[in-house]
Amino acid sequence: MKVIFGVDIGGTNIKIGRFTPDGELLEKWSVKTDLSDCGKKIIPQVAGCISENMAENNLCEEDMEGIGMGIPGPVDKNGYVKKCANLNWNDFNPVEELKKFFPDCRVRAGNDANVASLGEYFRGAGKGSSSMMMVTLGTGVGGGVIIGGKIIIGAHGIAGEIGHISVTDAEEDCNCGNRGCIDQWASATGIVREAGRLLEADDKPSMLRQAEKLTSKDVCSFAKQGDNLAVECINRCMYPLGKGLAYFSHAFDPEVYVIGGGVSLAGEIIVDAVRRGYEDNLYLIRKGADIRLAELGNDAGIIGACALASGE
Amino acid sequence: MKVIFGVDIGGTNIKIGRFTPDGELLEKWSVKTDLSDCGKKIIPQVAGCISENMAENNLCEEDMEGIGMGIPGPVDKNGYVKKCANLNWNDFNPVEELKKFFPDCRVRAGNDANVASLGEYFRGAGKGSSSMMMVTLGTGVGGGVIIGGKIIIGAHGIAGEIGHISVTDAEEDCNCGNRGCIDQWASATGIVREAGRLLEADDKPSMLRQAEKLTSKDVCSFAKQGDNLAVECINRCMYPLGKGLAYFSHAFDPEVYVIGGGVSLAGEIIVDAVRRGYEDNLYLIRKGADIRLAELGNDAGIIGACALASGE
Repeated sequence: MKVIFGVDIGGTNIKIGRFTPDGELLEKWSVKTDLSDCGKKIIPQVAGCISENMAENNLCEEDMEGIGMGIPGPVDKNGYVKKCANLNWNDFNPVEELKKFFPDCRVRAGNDANVASLGEYFRGAGKGSSSMMMVTLGTGVGGGVIIGGKIIIGAHGIAGEIGHISVTDAEEDCNCGNRGCIDQWASATGIVREAGRLLEADDKPSMLRQAEKLTSKDVCSFAKQGDNLAVECINRCMYPLGKGLAYFSHAFDPEVYVIGGGVSLAGEIIVDAVRRGYEDNLYLIRKGADIRLAELGNDAGIIGACALASGE
Repeated sequence: MKVIFGVDIGGTNIKIGRFTPDGELLEKWSVKTDLSDCGKKIIPQVAGCISENMAENNLCEEDMEGIGMGIPGPVDKNGYVKKCANLNWNDFNPVEELKKFFPDCRVRAGNDANVASLGEYFRGAGKGSSSMMMVTLGTGVGGGVIIGGKIIIGAHGIAGEIGHISVTDAEEDCNCGNRGCIDQWASATGIVREAGRLLEADDKPSMLRQAEKLTSKDVCSFAKQGDNLAVECINRCMYPLGKGLAYFSHAFDPEVYVIGGGVSLAGEIIVDAVRRGYEDNLYLIRKGADIRLAELGNDAGIIGACALASGE
């Protein structure tokens, strides 16, 4: 029985999934990332986990069709990583390194956000579409572009970086140096900041006032429960993202936008606010891209890594 | 000897080029477009021109490797045209129609701006790059996106439509319904309007005051000659385009932007102004895409149509 391993390497945990060649998830597990020795132990650790699992399942090397990896940093098309701060890697090629353990196996690597996008494209919310962009709303705002089943990295590695386009005027400096960036609104950080501003601006009652140290999760959860101020906060923070997506539609015009990441767990309220910003800024066509919630949650990384390795 | 024909069908003229399979231009000519009978005569006219040229050059049908066509309107990937106002076409497939005349020949069609972009990509300013966007500055602002040698049409046909993203606040309504669009600045129309505003705003001497009915060509030509007000006009009009290109770099991050169309004939002064707007709005990377002038001029259409037909 042939298998594919999808590996999502993070600064804290390594998630691994064993899949059929068709992409069916057979088993998944995770281990703490061994960051010692300047990150040199990570790939041997991945190899060890895979070998162990193979042995447990009476699989031999020729059963292994491929291994895909998601890496939390920029990865070029040959798997080369110039710098990955979270893993302490510099000038390193994890693909070549892993191939030392599995010389006859197809090994591929990509940026983790791009790989997760590939997962949603083949098995999640983007399934069946011709082109897709996934936007990940976490501490920051990231994105991955898929056209015709291929990840678009871009000539300088910034394709899909919607977080750092400036779409609003009145905002403090972003840590990228620009101002008014989408990241300053639609990220977890942006949501907490905007909630603070709204709370200061008047004294209307709101569940937001109950929280001792407000988190974006609180804001999302209160918004879901219908708290007016929390809803207003989400609307204000997601509208600029929708405007940015309208720009992106004029650029490569994807069929679907998929919204994922921790913030997206607030659900349809997020999508509705993004869609308003999108439609208000799209004049050329009546109906643009579908905007949908991601479907795969934390498994997007391993599922996408499997898709990368299967060469779909 | 094998040949390919590249055809650029416009509302006024049809340009035709005969090429070697390697894309070398052997001969080019043009005829007035026969718009009579609801545009039904156009494809027979194209077929007639090609057959005549074949006969003159003692070529038979098996010498013909392909015919590519650029059409002034949206074309889907099968060559289908829902509506093309300039040619009076509705619900029409020019590829199928032309194949009736040359049943054994490879026939392909694409939108003329996209096809011209393909020309610059393979034979002009984008030669050797992995991805490129061409921006055409004419009466309006159009664009074509090429990734890995393929035209990106987009899911709704608006990929590359940079003209209608709104990047400035203070502007009247654009004819798309939005306001502050790049089209309102960087197009020939936008340049003339801005020149008028600048002339009204103060009474500094300027060559612009000599022209009886000011055209964008005048503004470009005076700017080239160093007229201060004309230079300021070009700077003001091209900066928003540069900002838009920065957005597009965050979207699909092309290696090269190529600036073409009538307005671009003003030369490096245009590119410099665009580059300032681009660099001022690009914070994520130190050096982004190259911005270059188009090289093929009016031949980009037939050269791109040849590339389309050769299936490069």
